[in-house]
Amino acid sequence: MTAATIARDPDLLLPPEPRVRAIARELYECIRGLPIVSLHGHVDAALLAEDHQFHSATTLLITDDHYITRLLVSQGVPLDAFDWRRPTAVEPLSDRDVWRTFCQYWPAFRGTPTRTWLEHELVEVLGIDREPSEETADLLFDEIAERLADPAFRPRALFERFGIEVLATTDEPWSDLSQHAVLRDASLGGDVIPTMRPDRLFEIAAYGWRAAVGEFAHAAGTDIRVLDDMLHALVRRRAEFQAAGATATDHGTPTLRVARMPDRVADELFRRALDGERIDAAEAAAFRAHLLFESAQMAATDGLVMQLHPGVLRGADRRVAARHGEDRGFDIPFAIDAAHSLRPMLEAYGFAGRFRCVLYTLDETLWARELAPLAGVYPSVFLGAPWWFHDSPNAMLRFRRAVTETAGFQNTAGFVDDTRAFLSIPARHDVARRVDAAYLAELVAAGLLGRDEALEVAVDLTVGLPRRVFRRGEEGHR
Amino acid sequence: MTAATIARDPDLLLPPEPRVRAIARELYECIRGLPIVSLHGHVDAALLAEDHQFHSATTLLITDDHYITRLLVSQGVPLDAFDWRRPTAVEPLSDRDVWRTFCQYWPAFRGTPTRTWLEHELVEVLGIDREPSEETADLLFDEIAERLADPAFRPRALFERFGIEVLATTDEPWSDLSQHAVLRDASLGGDVIPTMRPDRLFEIAAYGWRAAVGEFAHAAGTDIRVLDDMLHALVRRRAEFQAAGATATDHGTPTLRVARMPDRVADELFRRALDGERIDAAEAAAFRAHLLFESAQMAATDGLVMQLHPGVLRGADRRVAARHGEDRGFDIPFAIDAAHSLRPMLEAYGFAGRFRCVLYTLDETLWARELAPLAGVYPSVFLGAPWWFHDSPNAMLRFRRAVTETAGFQNTAGFVDDTRAFLSIPARHDVARRVDAAYLAELVAAGLLGRDEALEVAVDLTVGLPRRVFRRGEEGHR
Amino acid sequence: MTAATIARDPDLLLPPEPRVRAIARELYECIRGLPIVSLHGHVDAALLAEDHQFHSATTLLITDDHYITRLLVSQGVPLDAFDWRRPTAVEPLSDRDVWRTFCQYWPAFRGTPTRTWLEHELVEVLGIDREPSEETADLLFDEIAERLADPAFRPRALFERFGIEVLATTDEPWSDLSQHAVLRDASLGGDVIPTMRPDRLFEIAAYGWRAAVGEFAHAAGTDIRVLDDMLHALVRRRAEFQAAGATATDHGTPTLRVARMPDRVADELFRRALDGERIDAAEAAAFRAHLLFESAQMAATDGLVMQLHPGVLRGADRRVAARHGEDRGFDIPFAIDAAHSLRPMLEAYGFAGRFRCVLYTLDETLWARELAPLAGVYPSVFLGAPWWFHDSPNAMLRFRRAVTETAGFQNTAGFVDDTRAFLSIPARHDVARRVDAAYLAELVAAGLLGRDEALEVAVDLTVGLPRRVFRRGEEGHR
Repeated sequence: MTAATIARDPDLLLPPEPRVRAIARELYECIRGLPIVSLHGHVDAALLAEDHQFHSATTLLITDDHYITRLLVSQGVPLDAFDWRRPTAVEPLSDRDVWRTFCQYWPAFRGTPTRTWLEHELVEVLGIDREPSEETADLLFDEIAERLADPAFRPRALFERFGIEVLATTDEPWSDLSQHAVLRDASLGGDVIPTMRPDRLFEIAAYGWRAAVGEFAHAAGTDIRVLDDMLHALVRRRAEFQAAGATATDHGTPTLRVARMPDRVADELFRRALDGERIDAAEAAAFRAHLLFESAQMAATDGLVMQLHPGVLRGADRRVAARHGEDRGFDIPFAIDAAHSLRPMLEAYGFAGRFRCVLYTLDETLWARELAPLAGVYPSVFLGAPWWFHDSPNAMLRFRRAVTETAGFQNTAGFVDDTRAFLSIPARHDVARRVDAAYLAELVAAGLLGRDEALEVAVDLTVGLPRRVFRRGEEGHR
Repeated sequence: MTAATIARDPDLLLPPEPRVRAIARELYECIRGLPIVSLHGHVDAALLAEDHQFHSATTLLITDDHYITRLLVSQGVPLDAFDWRRPTAVEPLSDRDVWRTFCQYWPAFRGTPTRTWLEHELVEVLGIDREPSEETADLLFDEIAERLADPAFRPRALFERFGIEVLATTDEPWSDLSQHAVLRDASLGGDVIPTMRPDRLFEIAAYGWRAAVGEFAHAAGTDIRVLDDMLHALVRRRAEFQAAGATATDHGTPTLRVARMPDRVADELFRRALDGERIDAAEAAAFRAHLLFESAQMAATDGLVMQLHPGVLRGADRRVAARHGEDRGFDIPFAIDAAHSLRPMLEAYGFAGRFRCVLYTLDETLWARELAPLAGVYPSVFLGAPWWFHDSPNAMLRFRRAVTETAGFQNTAGFVDDTRAFLSIPARHDVARRVDAAYLAELVAAGLLGRDEALEVAVDLTVGLPRRVFRRGEEGHR
Repeated sequence: MTAATIARDPDLLLPPEPRVRAIARELYECIRGLPIVSLHGHVDAALLAEDHQFHSATTLLITDDHYITRLLVSQGVPLDAFDWRRPTAVEPLSDRDVWRTFCQYWPAFRGTPTRTWLEHELVEVLGIDREPSEETADLLFDEIAERLADPAFRPRALFERFGIEVLATTDEPWSDLSQHAVLRDASLGGDVIPTMRPDRLFEIAAYGWRAAVGEFAHAAGTDIRVLDDMLHALVRRRAEFQAAGATATDHGTPTLRVARMPDRVADELFRRALDGERIDAAEAAAFRAHLLFESAQMAATDGLVMQLHPGVLRGADRRVAARHGEDRGFDIPFAIDAAHSLRPMLEAYGFAGRFRCVLYTLDETLWARELAPLAGVYPSVFLGAPWWFHDSPNAMLRFRRAVTETAGFQNTAGFVDDTRAFLSIPARHDVARRVDAAYLAELVAAGLLGRDEALEVAVDLTVGLPRRVFRRGEEGHR
């Protein structure tokens, strides 16, 4: 039973052919130690502001990581096993029992990036190379508990150890940003900056919309009676986010439709929604498109980078959502259009002021067909990193192969980790760096790029582009 | 002229890089001899029940293999050449002449899986390594005839030689399953089991629907006057199929839409259709979705695995269909949706009772975007093997690369050969095993998987998963 | 500073694994010198008929190459920089200044095929291996000017040096083809033939349609008062094109919808459009589909190959189009359907007379899903080369991998360069030959194809298939 250790391959993910591997290794060695520039993610600022000890292996690694829980559920683990703080008739498992379950299903993660991240987290972050299994579950649980009791494994200590230059969080538009204020006063060795995600204000037909508007009005210190009130409040709050270090807003949206409606129609829809009248799906979609259009106009003025994350049926299983909440892994992507949907926004703002947008997609057919052609001509359009289910070696390679020929490298925005799982941040950036090194080595081996050029590009993809695209210091010629 | 032999490369389809090839070879060697578990296919049970000698090279290999005839037609061979037993004014070619035509067009098969299967069939099954060409056509025809006269080349003898553990056929819901009864009494060294495919009962606007309902009522020994009669008969007949060994049903459907309509509306539609009233396309689609929903409910109770084969415009050329019949190669896939279409079924039955479905697609954009996310969270959803046009090395690799990162291996259902061409079964499984070995070797070479793990996965993909997913004995934890 | 030279790798684009590379090299060596058969492109016949000296590096390589200008625009170069002969308030840059800008942004082209083509043009055509950069810009500009002053770099001299067997241009249906007449009388060592592209006549709702009909009527020497007049004129002009050497027509169309409308309805629409009445988008689309259907009928008679280039939102940014004209890089592809859209045309003409069509797409999901299945059964359907944004090594490889398994090689139409940039023709054919060699070498290494067969296929893809499919001499069995 000596075999049950995790063997981390130093050449992980590098191409197999020896000559190409040597080139990739050289590139990777030059970028592996660069700082982490993480300009889109979902780590809670409170985690770092409060700097509490992590509670257990389970809360650290399992409970809130829907990549993991969804695969466990697919293997038959009941949803009620997890302590998601929803009222269910069933008692959740103890942290230790969830951990045991996870270890039992370790083989189900073969071939997934989650496995790679977890191995990285165990070995490189926690210093534990024991392979999870039914037999090792308890021992591992205790070993991790031991680590977590050590102050060196508190969030802030890890933040510094990870070499994070900047970490963007995702925040409601009514957030008071107090955690960020705490973190600005702390000396973390890197910035933690907010990102405004106003989705809940844009969904006038959704349950809870009026409450969201109320909360937003309160935070903005204003009354919101007509649409203009909300737009003015948004402008002000964007400025406050910017003052707190924000470089971007983020928008989750079913489609990429961004289009103005006549002011009169928008005002009337807003009024009806505020009065609690029924808004149908088409009206809600048109209103969302309108508010995104207004957001683009604001971005052209204040320069906050507009990120669009479209094309997911979120909470696709409404029974699961009602019982267990959001972000439980029941979010299913679908096919979307970009060419027609983005046209009104780009005709209006594609060359306007400080406007800049970063486009993500879970419909990878858009990469070569629509997004690379758009990013390859509009100076304001950038391609976001492969996102969510695409945050994986194969999808990253497909992304580079699909977009580079049309958009080059300079119209991409670098890697973002997009994670809630704080411990996985270095693992995710490491995978991205390895895959970029592998891709660039292929270009060098094919005679398409010189080695010196490849190195320049590798560094640019890792730190230069995200800094420049998100306007963090290195503005350069863009 | 000594070159005209078929050279079978022992490393066929294994990756070219020597180190990766060595790993792949090792994996392949361990799985190449495993039994064939073939749980979805279209071989006629009568072939084995009657065990007649095959008639000629042409009927054995050409006439009913639309992969072959379609490519010959694309090269200008007239449809009338084939003896498809349809009334045409033109005399079909003799078997020998069709064979000559096929041999003449042998180069047109370069780069296709059909070529690989045919080479396997000639060399490995028939023991003939002569390459087809105009010059060799007659000699080959005669050599094959000689083989076929040998009792060792009768269907049952081949069945045993192929090492088939189980072979599923596809059967009309009114089949009396008498051939299967004969086969249960024979000692084949493996099972031949039926699969119910009730498509014809679900298409109320199709020509022949009323006749199908009549035939079904007769087989079920009941009257069918209202929809409930048909549903009850379906439940009973499913039980009879199950008693005859069936583990699954199969559903060819234009879209993946599965959704309940109000009983009253469904009853009324059924009545109108039975009365011969006109049903429009939208009504027919809604009724089909309703019957699929009812089928899912039945599956949740009786545990027959529900296979969905969507997204083909079957008989796309209606002139060809009218003159030459179905399954002549004029079936063209199109783009479909899964996220929205399957939602009602999965909200209702995704966690219900014994419900289990296997999803196939010819729209490969679904693999990473919709199907892997679904299979990666619902315990009842499995990814079917690359199907039809995708039953080919490149498509199989694309499949694994697209789905594994999100769904792992354990949410896939293993390989199914889906063929009418009995002789090609071992070839198809051999190609799948080689491609899986190649894919797994890549993961090992990239440091993502240990060799022992890869071997476990290879065996599981070959026999473990199909047995478990289709509930053949190895139920295990699922 | 000696490093700033362009190093052309003799093994450019060949696979990295030594054994596979050796096979690819052998294949490439056998096809690299074959004549250029260029049966779809956009070079202006006047360029060769007039044979003027090229004006400068900028007009030669930059101004009219939207692959280049779009990437410069994406980097922030203003659209007004280019001298596109549109009335703008801003003075365009001088040729030298545009060249300096291009050289400054040279790194933005890393990873794009444009870079590969430009390197080829500089080194192989112009004999200059200096790498573009801010420092070398002026020197390069002057060196190129020196070359261009040399009669050996006039268009006709280059045409002969490039080894062009045939070059097809793209021509309005009212073209008098006088340039082609001049070229027929010249001795170029190869043919320059016209291709009729009647798009402007088919768009009854577009600005300028009536003027186009007028121009066409004038060229056809007839009055066009009813639709039949135009159809008859089209038949006559097609014959005149054919007499001038044309082998094909070309059709840019938003969708692939080809379908007949009742004559009465079509006649009435035509009359309304001619009377200047408003035609809505749905009517215009139906009329376009009708004229494409009529074109297919004409093709079945006269044998001009019908090329369909669908699925682009052309001039997507109407502000840019209004100010700077068409073909400025603001053309964005979108998702389209083939299975349903082409059905009426293929049911009617798929087996009719001399009908033959070549299908291109920018929606690559069609390749494996719809186009390969269609080309793999209809003798009249061929797959066009990867087009526009897909004219790149990765997209070419994806194309072969997507279509060959279903359609083989014999149902593809060989490479077309599709370029306006005369100097890039050899570069583009060279890239295609290298990629085909690489792909075929993979098949050989995988044991799927013999070396002799691969060589036969390589030659066929390079010259045999385009000659045969476009009916240039080598008709053979097709």
